[in-house]
Amino acid sequence: MKQICLQSRPVGLPNAETFEIKDVKLGGLHSGELHVKLVFLSVDPYLRGRMNDTKSYIPPFRLGSPITSSAVCKVIRSEARDFAPGDMVLAQVPWQEEVIVDSKKVQKVDTTIASAPAYLGVVGMTGLTAYFGLLEIGKPRKGETVVVSAAAGAVGSAVGQIAQIKGAYVVGIAGTDEKVNYLVKELGFNAALNYNDPDFPKKLKKACSKGVDIYFENVGGTISDAVWPLLNKNARIPVCGAISSYNIKPEEDMGPRVQTYLIKSSAMMQGFTVGNFQDEFPEGTRQLVKWLDEGKLTHKETIVEGFDEIIPAFLSLFDGKNIGKIVVKLD
Amino acid sequence: MKQICLQSRPVGLPNAETFEIKDVKLGGLHSGELHVKLVFLSVDPYLRGRMNDTKSYIPPFRLGSPITSSAVCKVIRSEARDFAPGDMVLAQVPWQEEVIVDSKKVQKVDTTIASAPAYLGVVGMTGLTAYFGLLEIGKPRKGETVVVSAAAGAVGSAVGQIAQIKGAYVVGIAGTDEKVNYLVKELGFNAALNYNDPDFPKKLKKACSKGVDIYFENVGGTISDAVWPLLNKNARIPVCGAISSYNIKPEEDMGPRVQTYLIKSSAMMQGFTVGNFQDEFPEGTRQLVKWLDEGKLTHKETIVEGFDEIIPAFLSLFDGKNIGKIVVKLD
Repeated sequence: MKQICLQSRPVGLPNAETFEIKDVKLGGLHSGELHVKLVFLSVDPYLRGRMNDTKSYIPPFRLGSPITSSAVCKVIRSEARDFAPGDMVLAQVPWQEEVIVDSKKVQKVDTTIASAPAYLGVVGMTGLTAYFGLLEIGKPRKGETVVVSAAAGAVGSAVGQIAQIKGAYVVGIAGTDEKVNYLVKELGFNAALNYNDPDFPKKLKKACSKGVDIYFENVGGTISDAVWPLLNKNARIPVCGAISSYNIKPEEDMGPRVQTYLIKSSAMMQGFTVGNFQDEFPEGTRQLVKWLDEGKLTHKETIVEGFDEIIPAFLSLFDGKNIGKIVVKLD
Repeated sequence: MKQICLQSRPVGLPNAETFEIKDVKLGGLHSGELHVKLVFLSVDPYLRGRMNDTKSYIPPFRLGSPITSSAVCKVIRSEARDFAPGDMVLAQVPWQEEVIVDSKKVQKVDTTIASAPAYLGVVGMTGLTAYFGLLEIGKPRKGETVVVSAAAGAVGSAVGQIAQIKGAYVVGIAGTDEKVNYLVKELGFNAALNYNDPDFPKKLKKACSKGVDIYFENVGGTISDAVWPLLNKNARIPVCGAISSYNIKPEEDMGPRVQTYLIKSSAMMQGFTVGNFQDEFPEGTRQLVKWLDEGKLTHKETIVEGFDEIIPAFLSLFDGKNIGKIVVKLD
């Protein structure tokens, strides 16, 4: 069975040398374990960080060891009391077609409530990231202006919709006109802007005529640099991601220092990862599912098919072309 | 009577062209007003920001209008019930020797509790800035590592001492060996470093062997850039000042972007000004006076004498040579 491993730590964008395909055999199935087949695999920007050998909130991948991420899997064989073949489970798995997992580390999913890919997106980790980052750090109030970058992405599209539910004026930033149209016409954002427009900073200022109360940060770089001068008094900046810096060296990620902007507006930046809110996951999931049911939250996935598409799907995270959550279908 | 006004908005360091000395006459003394003589005048880094024509937490000084700052003044004549000649009051005043003030906008000070200059420093605005920034935003816990920049300055020296009272491990950053000695030998900091040492980043890392839990930001620039890689999980960064950027153009204040550092450590940066905590001033002042009485808080002022020393004293804020609060004695 093929397994995708980390062959070398990438400098810049990962490429063919980054990965190594190994042949592995499944071990025996012991008590408490499940033999599962990956059905939908999540590829996520944060995995890029784990390819570097630097201290972070999550340990780096080891050279020669498999890349792992979240997947919705189907149980083939079960040695665990509460699971039966055919059950669908959410698990953290290596990138290979089938795998033995500890049943204590997986979570059953009910695909009658939300679709299997939605468990990797809007009602899964990315939805929770949007939910807690926006509500617990951003704390939007009715009528405030919320700006979100990578707004057509998995996290950003949820952030914008939740901000609308809370009565905020929502401005999305994305990289193509197609995405900008999607944000305004399909998701009902109040405004959306293409950051490739040479007049982007000027247009952002115009779109945020009352200034920026919350900036949900997904991208970093020059896009965010354009937001700092617009911050209102007591602005909040949940810092979720900085995808523009993931494939460059730290010494290349230079921009205007933020201190004077933060002082002028008594603004707050808070870095976070969804794991910080683990105790509140059940409540968050319940609310996201409710909004989904009520039609207040819509979602879109970009789904590609086949094991050989895993690496291209991962790399496509960094080309800025996809809309919504990117999922690889393996069934 | 001489009055110091803003003649032109400085680009870079203020100079002779920035200021204009006008001759003014005192108006009549109306009911509720006091005629006061400035005794000790405070010069503060934040005044530099008010010389720019940019939106901030406090309006810019107007061209041709006087520079104003805090002063301890002696009442010469009173048309207000609760004030008598000889009373000492704290007031926001134009830079001139005598002035008419509204008695509702001044605060009596008792110089038997703390010295007059201390009301401009350790038990005044700068002490309160340290107190609220450190305790309400930084929230130090016993055994945590607190790093403070401009540590021998008015705010920094109070921050370090309050952090010690709270049981933190305190590392100060300053710009001369004399200051470093002062911090360790007179204020009892656990460690202090001279940022002009070419090995400063390496030595800072060594001094903070358990990482940095709180960084109290007073300076910005490359000094702070060296702190970001050392942040611990859930680090807090009260952003009080960024003196290194006050005399350069925004486009020159470039450095490593902070987003990835904040994400890795779930760290928080909060810009603030002491005015945000106005409702709590009485409590803060009471606590600072208590610590002063108990000998837990010491303070040092650099005092210069004479009206003609006001501008040089203000400019000296930016040359990094003074220790403690800088005050001009005018009596």
